[in-house]
Amino acid sequence: MNINSSNIMALAPNTSNKRETVCIFGTGDFGRALGHKMIQSGYPVVYGSRSTQISNLIPKEAEVLSHAEAAQKAAVIIIAIQRQHYNFLTPLAEILHGKVVVDISNNLKLNQYPESNAEYLAQLLPGAKVVKAFNTVSAWALQSGALDASRQVFVCGDDVEAKQMVMNIVRALGLTPLDQGSLLAAQGIENYPLQLFPMWKFPFFLSLGLTAFFFFYCLALDVIYTYIYERNNFSFFIAFTIPNRICPVMALILLALVYLPGVLAAIIQLYRGTKYRRFPDWLDKWMLCRKQLGLIALAFASLHAVFTLASPMRSFVRWRTSKGIISQALNNKTEPLDTTNAWISDSYLALGILGFFFFVLVGITSLPSVSNSVNWREFRFVQSKLGYLTLILCTAHTLLYGGKWFLSPSAYRWYLPNIYMLSLVVPCTVLVVKFVLIFPCIDKPLTQIRQGWERNPKYSE
Amino acid sequence: MNINSSNIMALAPNTSNKRETVCIFGTGDFGRALGHKMIQSGYPVVYGSRSTQISNLIPKEAEVLSHAEAAQKAAVIIIAIQRQHYNFLTPLAEILHGKVVVDISNNLKLNQYPESNAEYLAQLLPGAKVVKAFNTVSAWALQSGALDASRQVFVCGDDVEAKQMVMNIVRALGLTPLDQGSLLAAQGIENYPLQLFPMWKFPFFLSLGLTAFFFFYCLALDVIYTYIYERNNFSFFIAFTIPNRICPVMALILLALVYLPGVLAAIIQLYRGTKYRRFPDWLDKWMLCRKQLGLIALAFASLHAVFTLASPMRSFVRWRTSKGIISQALNNKTEPLDTTNAWISDSYLALGILGFFFFVLVGITSLPSVSNSVNWREFRFVQSKLGYLTLILCTAHTLLYGGKWFLSPSAYRWYLPNIYMLSLVVPCTVLVVKFVLIFPCIDKPLTQIRQGWERNPKYSE
Amino acid sequence: MNINSSNIMALAPNTSNKRETVCIFGTGDFGRALGHKMIQSGYPVVYGSRSTQISNLIPKEAEVLSHAEAAQKAAVIIIAIQRQHYNFLTPLAEILHGKVVVDISNNLKLNQYPESNAEYLAQLLPGAKVVKAFNTVSAWALQSGALDASRQVFVCGDDVEAKQMVMNIVRALGLTPLDQGSLLAAQGIENYPLQLFPMWKFPFFLSLGLTAFFFFYCLALDVIYTYIYERNNFSFFIAFTIPNRICPVMALILLALVYLPGVLAAIIQLYRGTKYRRFPDWLDKWMLCRKQLGLIALAFASLHAVFTLASPMRSFVRWRTSKGIISQALNNKTEPLDTTNAWISDSYLALGILGFFFFVLVGITSLPSVSNSVNWREFRFVQSKLGYLTLILCTAHTLLYGGKWFLSPSAYRWYLPNIYMLSLVVPCTVLVVKFVLIFPCIDKPLTQIRQGWERNPKYSE
Repeated sequence: MNINSSNIMALAPNTSNKRETVCIFGTGDFGRALGHKMIQSGYPVVYGSRSTQISNLIPKEAEVLSHAEAAQKAAVIIIAIQRQHYNFLTPLAEILHGKVVVDISNNLKLNQYPESNAEYLAQLLPGAKVVKAFNTVSAWALQSGALDASRQVFVCGDDVEAKQMVMNIVRALGLTPLDQGSLLAAQGIENYPLQLFPMWKFPFFLSLGLTAFFFFYCLALDVIYTYIYERNNFSFFIAFTIPNRICPVMALILLALVYLPGVLAAIIQLYRGTKYRRFPDWLDKWMLCRKQLGLIALAFASLHAVFTLASPMRSFVRWRTSKGIISQALNNKTEPLDTTNAWISDSYLALGILGFFFFVLVGITSLPSVSNSVNWREFRFVQSKLGYLTLILCTAHTLLYGGKWFLSPSAYRWYLPNIYMLSLVVPCTVLVVKFVLIFPCIDKPLTQIRQGWERNPKYSE
Repeated sequence: MNINSSNIMALAPNTSNKRETVCIFGTGDFGRALGHKMIQSGYPVVYGSRSTQISNLIPKEAEVLSHAEAAQKAAVIIIAIQRQHYNFLTPLAEILHGKVVVDISNNLKLNQYPESNAEYLAQLLPGAKVVKAFNTVSAWALQSGALDASRQVFVCGDDVEAKQMVMNIVRALGLTPLDQGSLLAAQGIENYPLQLFPMWKFPFFLSLGLTAFFFFYCLALDVIYTYIYERNNFSFFIAFTIPNRICPVMALILLALVYLPGVLAAIIQLYRGTKYRRFPDWLDKWMLCRKQLGLIALAFASLHAVFTLASPMRSFVRWRTSKGIISQALNNKTEPLDTTNAWISDSYLALGILGFFFFVLVGITSLPSVSNSVNWREFRFVQSKLGYLTLILCTAHTLLYGGKWFLSPSAYRWYLPNIYMLSLVVPCTVLVVKFVLIFPCIDKPLTQIRQGWERNPKYSE
Repeated sequence: MNINSSNIMALAPNTSNKRETVCIFGTGDFGRALGHKMIQSGYPVVYGSRSTQISNLIPKEAEVLSHAEAAQKAAVIIIAIQRQHYNFLTPLAEILHGKVVVDISNNLKLNQYPESNAEYLAQLLPGAKVVKAFNTVSAWALQSGALDASRQVFVCGDDVEAKQMVMNIVRALGLTPLDQGSLLAAQGIENYPLQLFPMWKFPFFLSLGLTAFFFFYCLALDVIYTYIYERNNFSFFIAFTIPNRICPVMALILLALVYLPGVLAAIIQLYRGTKYRRFPDWLDKWMLCRKQLGLIALAFASLHAVFTLASPMRSFVRWRTSKGIISQALNNKTEPLDTTNAWISDSYLALGILGFFFFVLVGITSLPSVSNSVNWREFRFVQSKLGYLTLILCTAHTLLYGGKWFLSPSAYRWYLPNIYMLSLVVPCTVLVVKFVLIFPCIDKPLTQIRQGWERNPKYSE
């Protein structure tokens, strides 16, 4: 809940007028919203506009002048105009000489122009100190005060003092400036608001591909096979049974893929005998998207949990249960309790529940505010130790689910293994290799390498 | 986990003494806690007090002097005294002339006095530079270092430099200052800590009213009707069945109410042919509480999910199940599997699970720390696209739940529809209108209007 | 998602060169990572190194010089070298005189040396302004830009200006500096990254001890007793039934322990007639770990919820259910619906669900980002009012679970009560005492005491 959201903000000119005047070129949505917010924060605001006829949407406390007049009144000029109209600024180059000119523009596409808007502006106004800022904030967020979205404002520019001035304004508006370096960073900053989860792209498409593969695999084995050989129409498996088979399989595989790159990196470091060489590019990229892989795995695990808990309500399951009970009743016999079976069923469920519990715990610590409040050692403990515990529990859960079916020929329809068997390949590999890596005779040199020791020193200081 | 919470903070006077002395008037709880914290951060602290007899609760590193002496030693004076005693400051007006005087007081009621405490203080001390700050921080939080609650400190004042000095102190204490403008904002800042979820008030009472209505509606149809016409005492439905009928209905209606104002706004903009006119007040307010509506809807959906998953454990459900099985067994017949039924039951459950899954996803992104780490486009994508997907899935879930009962006369007790039918009205309307709005012939002018185009330009620059 | 994580950061020397040069001693992992990040943020970087032979891992934009030459070029020198090699700095003492020397070192153990590394450095270089910083940030986090872990940088030092310079650098790197006072705080700051959840230690071991006790208690009563007296092998209860008995008991007891210290504090204050005396040490510590106790209680409650929801899937439960139904079917009779039973079963479930719901709500508000966005009054409302509501609901849930078994002798195997009865002792005590405390005749003096009133004033100002 933000204090502004309840409209208690005093919209009043600053009585002591110590804050320097800010000029805004352009009276469009964003220019107006920014002006409002600045006046609230005690800045006198002057608008530079083609016509000085005042729209009733412009804050009353602001002056509206011609561009040239307005620019002369302020040290900081904010250009709230689209890039295609920048050339109108060329005649003003002299007035803007030495002033701080803030480019707040955004593009419609990634890398729309060869150079960033801010760099283009700096070319048009060689004497001005161009700073890129504010492009990640929306007019709506500024207006409503309901800053639900990000408060981060990326700032870059070649002149350190000009940047500092802009960052002070950003702070005064209740936003968080992040210095991104020289104006070369402007391209990146302009691309930033156009990005749509760039780090999630690879994990998402990997999951999509695997899900599609497992769906058709299950469709063949569970629906088509049954239809051909047993004449049973189990097409409704598509709605519930198959999703609930795919989800745990995906969760386990993706979780194992989170820990596989770490194991591979250790092997590479051991083989090379040094940590001072870059990993292959694919491994670096893989390591950077581990968090996303893990969160998608958690999503699949959650779906699996809810699907499983909901299954007793399915009409098919209820039908199967009552069929079993009725056939026992009609045969006048009650099966005795099979203790082994009870053990397997109970441990299988308990392992799954515990695995899911630790998975959720690891997931919660990856929330930005939680990971911000733990130190590095604590973060590593949760993400690595608890993560491996989760992997062990989930793998054991799947192994117990399989139970004795691994050796039963009837589990291999069309000589193909069931998908839960496929899902065990990666996690078992990771766990076995990790188990080997923690043997002292291997762990010791690895720790030394990670502390900077080299087998064949070449790159040392 | 804050570093302070483990008491590792060195409580020592700053050896180089470069930080300016701060004076605190009043040795009450908050004055002491603030003094402690300031000494920890390297500020020399002087207390101004009526008696200079030192309580053992005052930090040992601090001096205790008379008010006049203490004030002379410092440029910043913090008034940790209740408003009703402010008049004792009048004789000190001369000494406080030109100094930064910080008002940290709070009231017991909203708008208790005609003017804010800080403005009253500024009237009493016309020469002093009054700054409002620290009133949102609790003494307990400062003392324990366990800053579980907010670290935000709202600061306002007419003198920019004075405000800057106070904001630097706030930062040095590990808190986050937020500049709120001139002293006119003090009223709002003083009201802030007295507020109790002001943005939640309307959504909460709306939910309460609707819940009460649906409760009595269900009570009439499910308990009283059954009792009168079928002589069955189903009063225990009040404890479980009726809540689990109300929750999904409330979740669906509130979720639809989140997306209804957006659709209405689009219609209004299309009708007016411009976006440069303010929406009616009720629509603006409605749009600002969409997040709260959505979160309450999510709460109802979560309750519905847990209630539903728990239902197989109910004694009534177990009794009904065994009754059904026994009657089949006694009649010596087993019902065959009804594939259509299995399809409906499975899709109904799967849609509900998926809807809930996406709902939780949207809910997670509305956590402040998550929404802070995505850009505007990503935030919109999740809140709008995934939100609509949730609405579609939940509406389909409810439609399938109804199944063929919509046309069955026995579903209409006392000629009244079941509540799940009522719950479908708003979401179906929203979805139909939204579907119409995305037709190119309507979407195109709407997009133009939102980019600033006007059918009858009047307000343009 | 951080902007850096997508590698869009422009790695370019700052063209206007207004940022002051920073010198880094040591070209190890952390020195290189820090140098990279600084160059990105526009700082010219000079490395001081034993050999000036340049490793290809050092950023190309940085100069590499001898220690003395490098130190002369900059006002800020960062010592990225381990403590045991600090003595090589002694000859450089003259060059480093008056410069800002930043100690970024960490130890391998808590309190490894009598004095902190930063204080040791200050002794070696008496003329330098030593500042402790950056030790909580990992090289990996700096390198990858994926600042998943904390962005907080604790800074301390005796010279305020030097500290300010370092804090500006920290801010420029996109990190959050937290001023921790004088150099005496260095010991704490150096211990911080070595801590592993210090606040969680006591709650964790308390839970572990209680869990172990209840496990053996249940083992004796549920498995061993049954085996001895009824010859039933219920050993598989260890996997599911016993955990699901322990979890709710632990959740309820720990939740009550969260509210017990508040009640004790009130009694102590009432007895003493003043709030101006410190609570006993154990009570203070207990109050500081209430959040952790509550979160562990929530973890147990969540496990209980999932275990309970999963129980219909257990092979034992299914066997018991079908046995019951078959015996009814064979006896040709159907039991009628027991309305009282239905009421108890339904209310019991509903209370548990509502209790869990409010528990989760309270848990969500203790997420740092959520508690940061509410004011103190709202935080107290959720943590206190909703917390008590949760306690009442969960206690009622357990009481109803017991139902009429409290008075049945068969519930007392070996004359011992069932564990759910044990679990009720603490919460019932807390609720009864709290109920007494809110009586006006007791609440009024308590409120007065909390507002500063004293029965026997001794400590007043």
